[in-house]
Amino acid sequence: MTTTIDTPAAPLEAASGAEACCTLSAGPIDSVDAERLASMLKALSDPTRLRLLSHVAAQGCNSVCACDLTEPLGISQPTVSHHMKKLVEAGLLTREQRGRWAHYSVVPAAFAELRAFLDLA
Amino acid sequence: MTTTIDTPAAPLEAASGAEACCTLSAGPIDSVDAERLASMLKALSDPTRLRLLSHVAAQGCNSVCACDLTEPLGISQPTVSHHMKKLVEAGLLTREQRGRWAHYSVVPAAFAELRAFLDLA
Repeated sequence: MTTTIDTPAAPLEAASGAEACCTLSAGPIDSVDAERLASMLKALSDPTRLRLLSHVAAQGCNSVCACDLTEPLGISQPTVSHHMKKLVEAGLLTREQRGRWAHYSVVPAAFAELRAFLDLA
Repeated sequence: MTTTIDTPAAPLEAASGAEACCTLSAGPIDSVDAERLASMLKALSDPTRLRLLSHVAAQGCNSVCACDLTEPLGISQPTVSHHMKKLVEAGLLTREQRGRWAHYSVVPAAFAELRAFLDLA
């Protein structure tokens, strides 16, 4: 971790082993990218939102009705709506109204971008 | 994105293609994991910290001297120290004092955990 040998950054494929160097695939990021990533990470920096997101994402390709998110988390419908709005505004979820209920799906490209940034180790 | 066909979640390997379903590898997370992940994500939800982190991570296995982080970002040494402290406290970086200067390295396991959670798409 603290060696100072000047090895080149390993390619992504070689970096997945336990012995591999830490490497950031894209190198230093600029301030525009940093602002966009930070806004997504800020929306994720809440434990209730992470649990809601994990319930939506666990449905794979299926969207999830807001009505099915209150019971597993033990939170009220207004609280669900508040947190889901933050995730939609950050571009992490999409929202579709179907009659009385909103339905949510993950935005794969947003998570791909976060993963690409976090692709250390 | 909004189909309601009840397909099982695809395994991780099969989920990397452009046509793949969104899938969260670990399924719904509990409140303990959510708290820990949220605290790491909160430390990352600042554009200056993301840029600092990207400079450290770009050095691969090498640690980075705090003295080398002021110029590329155009920020003061106290500002560097403030932000680096938040990243160390969140378990994302390690800090080693060498004489006058602190040196920082990424913690691969922390990023592996974040990536595992964000493994959607």
